[in-house]
Amino acid sequence: MVNYPHKVIPKNNIKRRKKGTINFANRGMSFEKMINASNDYYLSRGLAVIHKKPTPVQIVRVDYPQRSRAKIVEAYFRQASTTDYSGVYQGYYLDFEAKETRQKNSMPMKNFHPHQIDHMERVTEQDGICFVLLHFSTLKETYLLPAPYLIDFYKIDQGSKSMPLTYIQEHGYLVPQAALPSVPYLEIIAKNLLGGNKNE
Amino acid sequence: MVNYPHKVIPKNNIKRRKKGTINFANRGMSFEKMINASNDYYLSRGLAVIHKKPTPVQIVRVDYPQRSRAKIVEAYFRQASTTDYSGVYQGYYLDFEAKETRQKNSMPMKNFHPHQIDHMERVTEQDGICFVLLHFSTLKETYLLPAPYLIDFYKIDQGSKSMPLTYIQEHGYLVPQAALPSVPYLEIIAKNLLGGNKNE
Repeated sequence: MVNYPHKVIPKNNIKRRKKGTINFANRGMSFEKMINASNDYYLSRGLAVIHKKPTPVQIVRVDYPQRSRAKIVEAYFRQASTTDYSGVYQGYYLDFEAKETRQKNSMPMKNFHPHQIDHMERVTEQDGICFVLLHFSTLKETYLLPAPYLIDFYKIDQGSKSMPLTYIQEHGYLVPQAALPSVPYLEIIAKNLLGGNKNE
Repeated sequence: MVNYPHKVIPKNNIKRRKKGTINFANRGMSFEKMINASNDYYLSRGLAVIHKKPTPVQIVRVDYPQRSRAKIVEAYFRQASTTDYSGVYQGYYLDFEAKETRQKNSMPMKNFHPHQIDHMERVTEQDGICFVLLHFSTLKETYLLPAPYLIDFYKIDQGSKSMPLTYIQEHGYLVPQAALPSVPYLEIIAKNLLGGNKNE
């Protein structure tokens, strides 16, 4: 899957009318774009400085055409050694990964890779605020799960089990849906994860 | 300049004998590689989790040859919106840029770009520990300068002045040369930049 720069403008796709409630908010925006938009909101309001890390690419060959910008003509995707998002909020180091599923009862663990789990463990050991944002697109619900609970669960079967929604609801926090920012995860952190409440 | 993945193994070039002292440490290693090696040291010792951000690349075209990995055939370098290095150290958010010069009396400000200065300002506003590592390769000296002093100086002439070494020595800290890690900046932070001493 090609990982385009996150500043791609989302298209305003009209979703087909589904049975039940119609969610007019965030139409056509993938979960990743919603998070990027939320980070832009936090940045522009001076609330936090959080960015998505660029996709690591191994550059093999670059052409330098005259009077034109350098053109990369051969490169390969490298595996990231960290999570996708990190930044600072009131002096705290924030670090998270965002995953999405259409399933209604569990989050597949194949979405997570050993190096991400390892990174989250190291960050947690350094007292960084580390978590995952899990989006259940069919349910239209997003949860914030502190990293220790993800790590504990991942280690049960080295990532082959699926994480039940009930486990996430028990140890995580529902992120209320909003218009702006579309994924207000910062308020969950401010309320629950700072100081003595961290990772509990 | 092509920005290769930072895990490239440094070559052991033999430097020509120069007048005066010969530095056998870190031969043939660029400043960036020395920092990356230092970060690897901190990571492996469980002291801090600090990584260089991948070079942002705008991917335009990808080929998917059969039985082969995806090949990026057209891409362009994008300008990074942040500094190069960030991570966590004992709960603190660290963020820095590394620059190097052959000059002996000052660090050119053209090495810094407005978006980097802007990013450092925002990080400082959020109480992140933000600084620059300035390497004077001819002098074989490295200084850690807290971001506010860089920002103040940059704003004098919007980046056209060169920053005198005396200014850096007055407001910054000499990072002692070492074998391992080659750039022990963390000890400078631990001693001078945490808690009440931050950014003073």
